[in-house]
Amino acid sequence: MFYLLDIIGTLAFAMSGALTAMNKKLDPFGVFIIAFVTAVGGGTLRDVMIGRTPVGWMRDLNYVYVIIIGFVLALVFRKKFDRLRTSLFLFDTIGLGVFTLIGLEKGINIGLHPVICVALGTMTACFGGVIRDILCTEIPVIFRREIYATICILGGIIFFVLREFNLENDILYLATSLVIISVRLMAVKFKWYLSPLENK
Amino acid sequence: MFYLLDIIGTLAFAMSGALTAMNKKLDPFGVFIIAFVTAVGGGTLRDVMIGRTPVGWMRDLNYVYVIIIGFVLALVFRKKFDRLRTSLFLFDTIGLGVFTLIGLEKGINIGLHPVICVALGTMTACFGGVIRDILCTEIPVIFRREIYATICILGGIIFFVLREFNLENDILYLATSLVIISVRLMAVKFKWYLSPLENK
Amino acid sequence: MFYLLDIIGTLAFAMSGALTAMNKKLDPFGVFIIAFVTAVGGGTLRDVMIGRTPVGWMRDLNYVYVIIIGFVLALVFRKKFDRLRTSLFLFDTIGLGVFTLIGLEKGINIGLHPVICVALGTMTACFGGVIRDILCTEIPVIFRREIYATICILGGIIFFVLREFNLENDILYLATSLVIISVRLMAVKFKWYLSPLENK
Repeated sequence: MFYLLDIIGTLAFAMSGALTAMNKKLDPFGVFIIAFVTAVGGGTLRDVMIGRTPVGWMRDLNYVYVIIIGFVLALVFRKKFDRLRTSLFLFDTIGLGVFTLIGLEKGINIGLHPVICVALGTMTACFGGVIRDILCTEIPVIFRREIYATICILGGIIFFVLREFNLENDILYLATSLVIISVRLMAVKFKWYLSPLENK
Repeated sequence: MFYLLDIIGTLAFAMSGALTAMNKKLDPFGVFIIAFVTAVGGGTLRDVMIGRTPVGWMRDLNYVYVIIIGFVLALVFRKKFDRLRTSLFLFDTIGLGVFTLIGLEKGINIGLHPVICVALGTMTACFGGVIRDILCTEIPVIFRREIYATICILGGIIFFVLREFNLENDILYLATSLVIISVRLMAVKFKWYLSPLENK
Repeated sequence: MFYLLDIIGTLAFAMSGALTAMNKKLDPFGVFIIAFVTAVGGGTLRDVMIGRTPVGWMRDLNYVYVIIIGFVLALVFRKKFDRLRTSLFLFDTIGLGVFTLIGLEKGINIGLHPVICVALGTMTACFGGVIRDILCTEIPVIFRREIYATICILGGIIFFVLREFNLENDILYLATSLVIISVRLMAVKFKWYLSPLENK
């Protein structure tokens, strides 16, 4: 079940990467690479920093296949993207929740401090998009608007608070994902965002 | 022999990096760093992702010396670059073939799936240039034109197909390099390229 | 003592990162991340390349707390930054010296060649700023002006020359830091810089 959600998130991230790259008029190879790094970039960065190598996608080919499917879907449906916007947004939000949890879990597994685990969760969920934007020479969108990363940090904190109550892992995971997903939906619906800081 | 070709490829990549950086009017330190990352960036990324640390160039100083030579050559000949364009292009093409093979080999050595090995070969050959372009705040050229990376992927596939016939390693390596090098020469001669994808 | 200087350097780097990010009108999360990578990016890159994982800041939470303090200070004093410019510059220069030494030391500890150790020292001191600039889509400032990185290389060379005289470690470290710090102060005072290279 959890694995299935991970795959759905990967698919959504790959498609959002492909669509960003097509907007930049990249060639098919460029579009594929951007789709790839958007989907696995955050997890790869996390694995490299904690020394979990070869990194995840090299050990489970399903990620590669799902990204290829996401790339093809983005190509086929690129002119009908407006109608798919809502589904893609939902998938992307699922990805946000699941990827945060995976990052938290990897940190806990190797005994890192909760603060670092929250950082790993946020990195897993958000840094694929950061690498995507850097490769397209844009200032990463999560540094500029929408409280995307802030929601992952919040989700991570709630995870460790709930964990104190000795909940079962399944319930813990479910509750954290639901918080992340629902806060994200509300954030978009009610247009919550962080104001830019200026030093003038 | 193979090591010599690796060195020639490194030299060519360092020079192409230095020339790109000089076009951006960087200072000598900046030019040197760009030369360095263009030459070893792809292999470094590969080593970090598969956990082969300290990364390659830290264990064999010859790479560092060759990059210094490439940097000095690019400095000395920078005003005569037009006449050197053909030699440099040939060296660069040798580098493309050899670096792809080195990446394939490292993946096979640690028992990764052929699909991942092809990705490692392509990464080794192409991502030095990607990091170079990012440091110069350009969208990476291989995402936009010329079928550079596609040739590495093709070379990798041919490698694994030929491997099924139980060829000797030397012949396998030679055949794969020749395919990569000749397809690249033809691609440039006949102006093959991938069209950009657009989502309008 | 050395640890204290490391912390001061981290604080200065975090503040300089936060100020750069506020100039780019990033939101608070973006400002925090840029502060973070400016402070620990160089060391993280070094640790990943030499295989020292989990990377440093994941094992000593003090770095995280100092960066949070730097971020808050930058926020609070952002309108009075002009008056703080001199202190911040001094702290940053301390960071440059200390970070170079830490990089040198890590390389020596795992038996790498002096040339590689100098590269690691320079990377530790300078690449946080490189990653900061890339995330803000600027060509890294150290590739364009001021002899920032060159001073680290010089400091590294002096370190290995002095080491031949069998000095005590404390004296060796002190002398190297003093060289780096005083050359940097002179470089800024007398406006030393490297001219850009052009290939026209």
